[in-house]
Amino acid sequence: DPTSDVSKKVFVAGTFDIIHPGHIEFLREASKYGRVYAVVARDSNSEKIKGRKPINDEQTRLEIVKSIRYVFDAILGDQEDFLKSVERINPDIIFLGPDQKVNENKLLEELRKRGLNPQIIRLRERIKRWNHSSTTDIINEIKKRYCNS
Amino acid sequence: DPTSDVSKKVFVAGTFDIIHPGHIEFLREASKYGRVYAVVARDSNSEKIKGRKPINDEQTRLEIVKSIRYVFDAILGDQEDFLKSVERINPDIIFLGPDQKVNENKLLEELRKRGLNPQIIRLRERIKRWNHSSTTDIINEIKKRYCNS
Repeated sequence: DPTSDVSKKVFVAGTFDIIHPGHIEFLREASKYGRVYAVVARDSNSEKIKGRKPINDEQTRLEIVKSIRYVFDAILGDQEDFLKSVERINPDIIFLGPDQKVNENKLLEELRKRGLNPQIIRLRERIKRWNHSSTTDIINEIKKRYCNS
Repeated sequence: DPTSDVSKKVFVAGTFDIIHPGHIEFLREASKYGRVYAVVARDSNSEKIKGRKPINDEQTRLEIVKSIRYVFDAILGDQEDFLKSVERINPDIIFLGPDQKVNENKLLEELRKRGLNPQIIRLRERIKRWNHSSTTDIINEIKKRYCNS
């Protein structure tokens, strides 16, 4: 249960390309557990994982994430090793979104090898009450409106 | 000169469609003058003024603007009368962006008729160090990448 214990460090990671209310709700939920440290994916890694370059570059995405009131601090991810960001922040909690493809047991195993043992909490439900709930939805809306005009 | 006088109310207004660092810098600059009250344009008015419907609907845009740390409070604009929002907030300062097409003298004249006499401050320079500095830039980037694929 969220405790709003501000002494706790809460790790979140994502691309945060075009900010939409799904991001905001995710970050707000994370902030209920403590101070949110957001790791913003590098352009190169994001392209590898999602198969497309982000619309906004990494510096732009970092700047926007930093401006959200639920975020205590934000940094760019490591180019090579995702776990380095976790080591650097040394969080009490890793907070995952409902769509984040992470094998929680495997992640914990890898982190323990590095001397870390955070709690992993996953936001179960995706918020559905918004007209666009992902960057892909926004891109599709723009394609629908503008591609044949 | 900005004084960070938190007792002052700073009025800003805009569509805030797809949030980009230009918005963030604008809101950050505004917050140097006091508590920022942001008025988010209604879908109908935004379409009338810009000639295109916003990508994100008004509730979505309101939610995102509220989540920005430089914003003290945000409300939706009035459907009919822009000046009603100014009356409702009764600001000490109206803060304008470099591209906002507002005749400052005419605005002051109208406000004085309603018993209001805020100071008008305009952010002179547009921030150019970002790859996309407007919603239109982001739409154009998406069109370029996705319209013929």
